[in-house]
Amino acid sequence: MWFLRINMTDRSWKLEEVPEAYRNLGGRGLTSTLIYDEVEPTVHPLGPNNKLVFAPGIVTGTTSPTSARVSVGTKSPLTGGIKEANAGTGWAPAVAKMRIKAIIIEGQPEEDKYWMVYLSWKDGQPSVEFLPADEYVGQDLYESFKTLYEKYGKKTHITGIGLAGEHRYPNSGIVFDDMKQRPSRYSGRGGVGAVMGSKGLKFIVVNDKGAPGVEIANPDLFKQGAKKLRDALNEHPVTKPKGGLNTYGTAILVNIVNEAGGFPTRNFRSGRFEGAARISGEAIFENNKKRTGKEVYNHACSPGCVIQCSNTIYAKDGSEIVSCVEYESDWALGANCGIDDIDGIAEMVKLCNAYGLDTIETGDAIAVAMDAGVLPFGDLEGAKALIHEMGKGTPMGKILGGGTGMVGKILGNPRVPAVKNQGMPAYEPRAIKGIGVTYATSTMGADHTSGYTISPELLGSGGKSDPLLSDETKITLSRDFQRTTALLDSTGHCLFIAFAILDIPSGFEGMIEEMNGLLGVNWTAEEALALGTEILKKERAFNEAAGLTKADDRLPEFMKYEPLPPHNAVADLPDELLDKVYGEL
Amino acid sequence: MWFLRINMTDRSWKLEEVPEAYRNLGGRGLTSTLIYDEVEPTVHPLGPNNKLVFAPGIVTGTTSPTSARVSVGTKSPLTGGIKEANAGTGWAPAVAKMRIKAIIIEGQPEEDKYWMVYLSWKDGQPSVEFLPADEYVGQDLYESFKTLYEKYGKKTHITGIGLAGEHRYPNSGIVFDDMKQRPSRYSGRGGVGAVMGSKGLKFIVVNDKGAPGVEIANPDLFKQGAKKLRDALNEHPVTKPKGGLNTYGTAILVNIVNEAGGFPTRNFRSGRFEGAARISGEAIFENNKKRTGKEVYNHACSPGCVIQCSNTIYAKDGSEIVSCVEYESDWALGANCGIDDIDGIAEMVKLCNAYGLDTIETGDAIAVAMDAGVLPFGDLEGAKALIHEMGKGTPMGKILGGGTGMVGKILGNPRVPAVKNQGMPAYEPRAIKGIGVTYATSTMGADHTSGYTISPELLGSGGKSDPLLSDETKITLSRDFQRTTALLDSTGHCLFIAFAILDIPSGFEGMIEEMNGLLGVNWTAEEALALGTEILKKERAFNEAAGLTKADDRLPEFMKYEPLPPHNAVADLPDELLDKVYGEL
Repeated sequence: MWFLRINMTDRSWKLEEVPEAYRNLGGRGLTSTLIYDEVEPTVHPLGPNNKLVFAPGIVTGTTSPTSARVSVGTKSPLTGGIKEANAGTGWAPAVAKMRIKAIIIEGQPEEDKYWMVYLSWKDGQPSVEFLPADEYVGQDLYESFKTLYEKYGKKTHITGIGLAGEHRYPNSGIVFDDMKQRPSRYSGRGGVGAVMGSKGLKFIVVNDKGAPGVEIANPDLFKQGAKKLRDALNEHPVTKPKGGLNTYGTAILVNIVNEAGGFPTRNFRSGRFEGAARISGEAIFENNKKRTGKEVYNHACSPGCVIQCSNTIYAKDGSEIVSCVEYESDWALGANCGIDDIDGIAEMVKLCNAYGLDTIETGDAIAVAMDAGVLPFGDLEGAKALIHEMGKGTPMGKILGGGTGMVGKILGNPRVPAVKNQGMPAYEPRAIKGIGVTYATSTMGADHTSGYTISPELLGSGGKSDPLLSDETKITLSRDFQRTTALLDSTGHCLFIAFAILDIPSGFEGMIEEMNGLLGVNWTAEEALALGTEILKKERAFNEAAGLTKADDRLPEFMKYEPLPPHNAVADLPDELLDKVYGEL
Repeated sequence: MWFLRINMTDRSWKLEEVPEAYRNLGGRGLTSTLIYDEVEPTVHPLGPNNKLVFAPGIVTGTTSPTSARVSVGTKSPLTGGIKEANAGTGWAPAVAKMRIKAIIIEGQPEEDKYWMVYLSWKDGQPSVEFLPADEYVGQDLYESFKTLYEKYGKKTHITGIGLAGEHRYPNSGIVFDDMKQRPSRYSGRGGVGAVMGSKGLKFIVVNDKGAPGVEIANPDLFKQGAKKLRDALNEHPVTKPKGGLNTYGTAILVNIVNEAGGFPTRNFRSGRFEGAARISGEAIFENNKKRTGKEVYNHACSPGCVIQCSNTIYAKDGSEIVSCVEYESDWALGANCGIDDIDGIAEMVKLCNAYGLDTIETGDAIAVAMDAGVLPFGDLEGAKALIHEMGKGTPMGKILGGGTGMVGKILGNPRVPAVKNQGMPAYEPRAIKGIGVTYATSTMGADHTSGYTISPELLGSGGKSDPLLSDETKITLSRDFQRTTALLDSTGHCLFIAFAILDIPSGFEGMIEEMNGLLGVNWTAEEALALGTEILKKERAFNEAAGLTKADDRLPEFMKYEPLPPHNAVADLPDELLDKVYGEL
């Protein structure tokens, strides 16, 4: 097992045997530990001393179901703290199969020039070539991917940045290929694309031909665990084939969250959107049926997934607009901007993919701008034009590329739905208190994936908790979810296995057994969860040293004095309680 | 003695007897104490819960020399911490003479509308009228001042905001009138103008006719102190009539600082500017002599000043371009942008005055943009056009209005000379170590006025300290200067009396006696300085609660690895030493 270190100052590389202390880590556990261990927390995120780490999960690259995820870790130009953003992609298992635990990008070239890395298996080990990439600069990512796949073949896998990363936007993601070689799977949040851009690195193309595959210490135990988990996924109504996610995609949440009054609308001015039904997962399914003449179930974003929740949006003529429109993108570019045209939303998602933008941050940023009078809410053509400005890098595009918080600062709008400068996702924290605790306290800034209390608060999965209840139970709830998630993000599994492992005991058991089998360890569930706690503690310590404090663990002030319709709820969890999430970790 | 509270939510006002605890405070001591006591540190700077305080100094409004200063205090939209920015202006004594210790602006109107306050003496007390001010919105401040003085007479005094404050720029100041009714005296730093704008307040016009004047508890002691101070000012070579400042203005520093290799040039890429001589105080004096046909000595910015350091820049035809061009403005818009045309610099200062912009932050912001390739260094016409964009509020103008740090973030340039997000003034911290300690640790962000160690480091005043010496003596030096300055900023005196009180013992004595005489107290020098310490502690506590940490007490990372010509010095004072400035306060 290796760390592959790539130095962009002199374009050199080396393989290092993974030190003992890192052997049992993967995904977020590994990226956050490496950033914590190797990056001075006060470095400039875009300077030569920041690092960018790619790490597949612990079981990524194996036959374990729904496990093809890669974590990207760095110091974030958006939050100023540590960042982990993960994606599901064939790129992840390809790297894992080369027995690379992490790719660590270091340094910075002196000249303003872009390179790509070609990573392949050669003479019994991974091998790196540096190739000039200036020809791709300024290009639409769909175009670049087409060229790259023509050059290197459809069996390779690609990660890279688009114009957003080239412009060094705090609102730039890192893209990965999906199953049809689309540039559509994103480590979206926190400006990780800008860090890649600051390293002069445009793409990493991986060809795993000849790679030996992932080492498994105890194959029988591993297989047993993987089977238990697969069975659970195949059984749970949310994750099973033709289940909720496979049929309606993540946008199945639109109607649910809207019904609960927690669907942020028009820059968080209301919790209910009158156009929700038109942009719901159900509407997408029905549209697709009408437009293709058949029931279209969703597909997998990456190899080996049971859940298969990625939709495709088909146009009226039956052609593909984009794949896929996730719930959060649908909301960010839809309800939050007052837009209820699902085709228009799909077009905007495609633009974000083409430019390398985070859809959530993009929607939030446009909504804050709309709120400040730049455009009227609901102006689809205007919103599209703004995304094009972001691609082109016009001054207005650069303002929006700065992300939600920056737009608020530049336009003088105090109504900024962000924590630690990261724009909020698709759940209103005033109406769904637990997710508010996660937004406020997560090491990542406002991030639903870092402690998805929506499961018990709205979906009846993993227990049940009244969304409007505002008391200490929400602190415990969020803390438990944050801890479990830190573990989950390390396994290489998609967060959506959570439904199956929270509700079906043998599913959780299976996940632990898989890891024990693969690593040759003997973790109890508690020991595994302790790993989650350790990760959070490191992330928190990094953030503290970087200058983040309790004052950054708060929802935006306007949510404290502005009641949210229809429940007229305000952010009312006392600061002392919020401080207990990490105070009592 | 009153506090005048003005509530902009409902446009009401009231006078409060000054509570005992605030009686001996004035200027910065009063603004910082009120902000500390009344503003929750985590509020949004532009939201309804921030406050804006105007407080004349303790001896302001009396016959004390060089004492017509007013402090403006608030939570800063630029730094996110507490802010005090003071200015010399006839507005300050006018308010003091009405026995108003502080004007406290609170609340926020619901509609997007501007008001002005007309403050006059009526029936034995100050009285407030609210008048619509929408007619002045979008106007050049020179134009507005002209109209206002025509309306209200030349004996009134005006403070207000220009387009920069209307746009809510973190780079907006609050303007005050000078002796010729020009909108030229600024509480410039920290975005205080945006806070005034967020309150819907455009101007405060003061008419002190009939006001009783400042109460003096012990007139004899007061007069004795004022005389000692006046004598010292008249004696010191820097402050005496036809002395250094009266002859060459603050721009006398250009050649001195440049010679020392500490004159930041082209966004802090060098410490020496080949065009320095052309923009120096000496050049200004010679130009003026040539252009007006006589030796032109400087004038006072405000009533009762002995030093009289404000220059006027005359054009080739003998007409006035602007008054005045301070050293820091000269540097910011000149050397730091690679511009050596003093007339061009004067025109840019006039534009900043007209739009209500902080000249230092403007120069820094433009220089970071130049460094990022927006314009070539030295492009005067381009720089002027950018200032006009700031006035107009184009997207590029708004980016620059965001200030130095924001420009760096938006343009992806890590070479940002700022601390706590406030752009650095005209002294290179790598080449002049003591001022670097002040920049790093001051509660105000990078601010030369908050601990002007330049005196001993370059001017041989208040002792002597080798500028390039990098050791613990610089910590003590900066701490002592920061403490003394906090006191000085409370007295109402201009910082420039520092030369006379540091070098002439009777001058310092006089300052203490004045305060004792006015307040009817019996402070020793140590007790007076302890007041300075108390102010710093409150400011620091506010900042900590607002979320600032040790990580914010650092010079920018690039200064640690990028050597500065000609000395090739880097920022090398260890963090542990920097932490002692406030750690051992």
